[in-house]
Amino acid sequence: MRTEQTTDWTLAARDAAAKLAVDALERDRANAEPLAEAQLLREHRLPSLLLPTSVGGGGGTWADALRAVREVAVADGSIAQLLGYHYVNQANLAWVADEPTRRRWQERTGPAQWLWGDAVNPVDPDLTLTPVGDGAAGGYRLSGRKSFATGVSSGDVSVVSGLDSSTGRSVLVVVERGAAGVQPGGDWDNLGQRLSASGSVTFTDVEVPAENVLGFLDGEAATPRASLVTPAIQAVFGGFYVGVVRGALQTAAEYTRSTSRAWLLSDSASAAQDPYVLATYGRLVARLRAAEALADQAGAALVAADEAGDDLTWHERGELAELVAALKVVSSDLAVEATSAVFEVTGARATSNRVGLDRFWRNVRTHTLHDPVQYKAREVGDHFVNGTHPEFTLYT
Amino acid sequence: MRTEQTTDWTLAARDAAAKLAVDALERDRANAEPLAEAQLLREHRLPSLLLPTSVGGGGGTWADALRAVREVAVADGSIAQLLGYHYVNQANLAWVADEPTRRRWQERTGPAQWLWGDAVNPVDPDLTLTPVGDGAAGGYRLSGRKSFATGVSSGDVSVVSGLDSSTGRSVLVVVERGAAGVQPGGDWDNLGQRLSASGSVTFTDVEVPAENVLGFLDGEAATPRASLVTPAIQAVFGGFYVGVVRGALQTAAEYTRSTSRAWLLSDSASAAQDPYVLATYGRLVARLRAAEALADQAGAALVAADEAGDDLTWHERGELAELVAALKVVSSDLAVEATSAVFEVTGARATSNRVGLDRFWRNVRTHTLHDPVQYKAREVGDHFVNGTHPEFTLYT
Amino acid sequence: MRTEQTTDWTLAARDAAAKLAVDALERDRANAEPLAEAQLLREHRLPSLLLPTSVGGGGGTWADALRAVREVAVADGSIAQLLGYHYVNQANLAWVADEPTRRRWQERTGPAQWLWGDAVNPVDPDLTLTPVGDGAAGGYRLSGRKSFATGVSSGDVSVVSGLDSSTGRSVLVVVERGAAGVQPGGDWDNLGQRLSASGSVTFTDVEVPAENVLGFLDGEAATPRASLVTPAIQAVFGGFYVGVVRGALQTAAEYTRSTSRAWLLSDSASAAQDPYVLATYGRLVARLRAAEALADQAGAALVAADEAGDDLTWHERGELAELVAALKVVSSDLAVEATSAVFEVTGARATSNRVGLDRFWRNVRTHTLHDPVQYKAREVGDHFVNGTHPEFTLYT
Amino acid sequence: MRTEQTTDWTLAARDAAAKLAVDALERDRANAEPLAEAQLLREHRLPSLLLPTSVGGGGGTWADALRAVREVAVADGSIAQLLGYHYVNQANLAWVADEPTRRRWQERTGPAQWLWGDAVNPVDPDLTLTPVGDGAAGGYRLSGRKSFATGVSSGDVSVVSGLDSSTGRSVLVVVERGAAGVQPGGDWDNLGQRLSASGSVTFTDVEVPAENVLGFLDGEAATPRASLVTPAIQAVFGGFYVGVVRGALQTAAEYTRSTSRAWLLSDSASAAQDPYVLATYGRLVARLRAAEALADQAGAALVAADEAGDDLTWHERGELAELVAALKVVSSDLAVEATSAVFEVTGARATSNRVGLDRFWRNVRTHTLHDPVQYKAREVGDHFVNGTHPEFTLYT
Repeated sequence: MRTEQTTDWTLAARDAAAKLAVDALERDRANAEPLAEAQLLREHRLPSLLLPTSVGGGGGTWADALRAVREVAVADGSIAQLLGYHYVNQANLAWVADEPTRRRWQERTGPAQWLWGDAVNPVDPDLTLTPVGDGAAGGYRLSGRKSFATGVSSGDVSVVSGLDSSTGRSVLVVVERGAAGVQPGGDWDNLGQRLSASGSVTFTDVEVPAENVLGFLDGEAATPRASLVTPAIQAVFGGFYVGVVRGALQTAAEYTRSTSRAWLLSDSASAAQDPYVLATYGRLVARLRAAEALADQAGAALVAADEAGDDLTWHERGELAELVAALKVVSSDLAVEATSAVFEVTGARATSNRVGLDRFWRNVRTHTLHDPVQYKAREVGDHFVNGTHPEFTLYT
Repeated sequence: MRTEQTTDWTLAARDAAAKLAVDALERDRANAEPLAEAQLLREHRLPSLLLPTSVGGGGGTWADALRAVREVAVADGSIAQLLGYHYVNQANLAWVADEPTRRRWQERTGPAQWLWGDAVNPVDPDLTLTPVGDGAAGGYRLSGRKSFATGVSSGDVSVVSGLDSSTGRSVLVVVERGAAGVQPGGDWDNLGQRLSASGSVTFTDVEVPAENVLGFLDGEAATPRASLVTPAIQAVFGGFYVGVVRGALQTAAEYTRSTSRAWLLSDSASAAQDPYVLATYGRLVARLRAAEALADQAGAALVAADEAGDDLTWHERGELAELVAALKVVSSDLAVEATSAVFEVTGARATSNRVGLDRFWRNVRTHTLHDPVQYKAREVGDHFVNGTHPEFTLYT
Repeated sequence: MRTEQTTDWTLAARDAAAKLAVDALERDRANAEPLAEAQLLREHRLPSLLLPTSVGGGGGTWADALRAVREVAVADGSIAQLLGYHYVNQANLAWVADEPTRRRWQERTGPAQWLWGDAVNPVDPDLTLTPVGDGAAGGYRLSGRKSFATGVSSGDVSVVSGLDSSTGRSVLVVVERGAAGVQPGGDWDNLGQRLSASGSVTFTDVEVPAENVLGFLDGEAATPRASLVTPAIQAVFGGFYVGVVRGALQTAAEYTRSTSRAWLLSDSASAAQDPYVLATYGRLVARLRAAEALADQAGAALVAADEAGDDLTWHERGELAELVAALKVVSSDLAVEATSAVFEVTGARATSNRVGLDRFWRNVRTHTLHDPVQYKAREVGDHFVNGTHPEFTLYT
Repeated sequence: MRTEQTTDWTLAARDAAAKLAVDALERDRANAEPLAEAQLLREHRLPSLLLPTSVGGGGGTWADALRAVREVAVADGSIAQLLGYHYVNQANLAWVADEPTRRRWQERTGPAQWLWGDAVNPVDPDLTLTPVGDGAAGGYRLSGRKSFATGVSSGDVSVVSGLDSSTGRSVLVVVERGAAGVQPGGDWDNLGQRLSASGSVTFTDVEVPAENVLGFLDGEAATPRASLVTPAIQAVFGGFYVGVVRGALQTAAEYTRSTSRAWLLSDSASAAQDPYVLATYGRLVARLRAAEALADQAGAALVAADEAGDDLTWHERGELAELVAALKVVSSDLAVEATSAVFEVTGARATSNRVGLDRFWRNVRTHTLHDPVQYKAREVGDHFVNGTHPEFTLYT
């Protein structure tokens, strides 16, 4: 007896997923900007899930948000990435911005169901923010290039980090879609997550008015709360991976039931009765159930941390990050293995490109490289053996 | 931020575990009857945890009971087995016996903190129950032998299953410790779980008065509720395995910190900083966290099933069994691997018998063979692919 | 000090591989008939490697042939499949045909460097051979369809199996390219092995003159020698898989050295010095070395069996098949895992489709499904535990 | 058809193994000095296998020696360790000593079938060699303690390394059994390899006459040939591990056939027909076959290096070391996994201490910690990616 809490948000996400599933393979191949998909998310009111009802939001929790990402990922990994990144990008309003800024932007984003992209990836050299006039109060001009910028090309607004050329501090600003000087590279042609709109973007003297400055994003300004973006995005990853695994296994099981043949040396009447096929499914499903349970725990922990607000301590933030890191490790390992193993339970004919069963592997094989899982494992081990919490970075 | 619910029962079990940990290795080697250990459990009031407070019990839930087993297993796998089996054996009062019988036995067992053993293992040929006088109303004489009978030699009472020689039905009866004709074999000398008192027992014309008959245990009499013993005992297994893994990892980490040396080709100042050591711990801990999360879910599901009582449906019972089977699979695989891998993060000197780090592997290597994990994996796979629930047996 | 025997054949195969490597990715994407590639093999005289020098062949051994397949597979899995299948198809001349037939065809195929395709896959219903006139002496008309027929569309001749409609026996015949009534489906659009020309073929009243009849291929006619086709093709598979693994690892290492960046939390100056990157390579390479060593042993054993000729016993044939099955198991498992793991040692940017590092995984993920590895593992286990040899089929 | 070269040495080793197998479990438990076992090796003339026939030796090759170690390991891991270490210790005569010293000692050791122990382990602080009179020419007095010294207590002579107190150089000397001042600790009480006589030893002013000085063992004096001790001992390890795996699998298969029962939910008539049991055996056996093939290659490579003598280059020595390191990695991983997995194919009753099936795991779990396999994997990876060879140490 599974005691599953099926919320309205889960149902809304499942409904969106069902629509995305219809042509997930064709859309993956087409590799187009996910504009229709973004609209679908808006129609299900998923973008505003986390915002307070007072600003036209859905009033949901981070557990709801993570669960929605997971449900969408069952059908479409790319769009799950867009949605998950959106939640974290938008959360900078709650966690980094001051009260007036937060309210101003939430009031705009909520009713409009905006999707938030980002150009924050810290592996690249930083973008430059040149003060216009006298410091941040006068706004900035933004220039530079980011190699990976999920959702900048398809999102309504984007969170962008850059270095203030006068102070050297890392500043977080909002850039609206279609702003002059923003040039998406249109160069995302990768193995997986093909619709995630993750290509490069070049900023050339983009005007950033003062009201678009959200706050600082560096060690000096970091608070436990402001640094929640890292465990949050990593929890998105974990939820996304377990969703893809469920999608792969469900798709494979449908194929095994409907199409696979019993092997000629098997005593079983059908592939769906073969002892090896069933045990292989069973082991993968068992691991999936465990990863899902851990994802649920991570969701609950993120809710608690979010609710703690300014009272959140570094220790609590560290414990959350460790739990999420554990989720990252088990979900990454499972995802890469399970999405490749599904072929073993469907058989040779399932490699036809008409079936497209490889898209699950392509998606997680691509995205799990975001940051090396070995370093996440080291982080978990360091916590267990030495009781440490890693310092805040955009990866830890 | 881990949102752990630390109940009084968890604290009581941890306290018992701390005392058991002091000489776990020496007691393992001595291979004696666990009488002092049983007394320790009684002193912490753990045996009556599940009984209603109205009969002097602790009023705890199955989630509490499974958590207590897990905590004890961190220190001592054998005693965790005794406690876990006890809970399930005693639960036949709640799930199989009729109301007067249940109450009569609960009132005796609660205040006395009795531990319940069993001679129910269905792999052996069945014991024989010969009616005295006219059918079950006159009681039985019990004869035969069971190869494995956990807790019969050390428990206060035992649940015993046998075949009624007149009707051929499988009957569940209670045999009290020291009853004439009960002869424990004292022949449990196995690789692991050495204190679990799991040797054989021979019954020779043991008198079983009518009031000691709990009910039937066969397909004919099976109800969803009466058949909860199987998911319950399998949930005990899963909890026990994850507890042993935590015990092994904690013991190893203490050794790594205090005693292990950095490898001479390592750049690290100490073993506890070595990148390979940390990543190995991290992967094992991450999997442990996932298995623990799944064990928590299984506990919650068993609570719900227990509370449903006679309203429990076969479908709900089947979903519970599937969830527990998934836990069995992941915890078994992890337990065997992790308890062997701890040597890789402690090093050659940790193989000294003074350290005794092998006892964790010996315990789970022995007990995970109770029923083959491949058939549990098949069960999970069959459910996922074909939507089936296995028929009730003492293994499914 | 590696004691490698680098023969002229190995050098020739490596030279062909070097040329194939230049545009392997582009050719994979184009999915065209591998006509130019076939010509390249001919220019290196690889097709006639196994034929006696007396008929214009190369006089090489099966060890040479398997090694050539392995070397080609380092660069191009599809073409390695074509070459390996060719060797086995052509070997029906030596193993199944009578002396005059063998000589007649060898004299034609040797100097012309013909490539042999096949339509023999037994999973489909059989093709029909209708006798023209009075039995096989008058030749046949061939009709029917095969779903997978490697090399029929690109090979110079093909070996085809069909059921003699008058006797019900399975007969092996030769069909020449361009014969009237042969219609390749051009429908091979699969995940991997895209250039292996493995699509369907339809035969409509194809004339098969008597001289094109090679012999019988069924239990009745089976001799140890005639049944060598199965261990031979399975040895080809194993060699092909280890070649692809080496190709994947070499390609990845080149990328790691030239392009990958050290992770920002790493203490290493470059990705090529990272302890996790190096240990991951090391474990994969170590397993590759072991699989290659086993492939060498399998090659030597096939040479011995081939040389034994009609003196080969069923026991010897069974021992060979068991050794080859072991190779199949280890090489399949390694291939699927290693070709996915290479991304972990190259990093996120290596998922760009310009790099195309996924083609190794696509190739082995597709081909290792030819027959389920679990059943090969069962075969090896049955031999070890029970001393059995499987009966001859086209899979065992 | 396996083309196995069964030499007389293999037969002799198998014969010794058969005798050791009779009471391997009882001897393991008794934990006594392996004096009778050493005598058994002498009776089979195995100690002198590698010595030239001109000095009364067997004239065998390193391939023979490694194969003998492997065969003995099938029955008894401890005695295989004694024999394997002996070969490497004794080989210092061939590889380090000058011609007169070599001949003098070989003439003594050959006819007497001496076993050579060692106190060379470099993890401990070095022993001290104080010159008597004027430098090495006058001999030394040896003092200090080694924690692990395999065979010193049971060997006829031992190779001991110490630091010359006047020059600071590392010197290799011979100490004869029973020499005054040699005090074995008798303190080897470990999980596995219990008869390997690997306890500590204390040297107190032991007289070392000049004729017992073999040569230098340090970077300054190192030649490719003199440094062969490291790949040789690591090849011994690999051979020893694969031998133990074969022993474990053979012992398990005998149990499966004779004693295991089919699981009650299995459709199979016996455990030996169960599909899961067979596939599990098959996968382990397949990996064993690959590891054995690699061990054969390593043996051939060591023969070539040994025969190259003073012409051996550092590059060739490095390539040998890399091949042996690969063997170390695959055999270690397989050994730890397979010796634990054998319980899954034998079942719960096989955990009885009367069966003693755990001794295989205990032996390899203990010995594979000699040096961390992760660092060997790094070595293999470093060679593959960067083309490096590690500098000579007693571990690389």
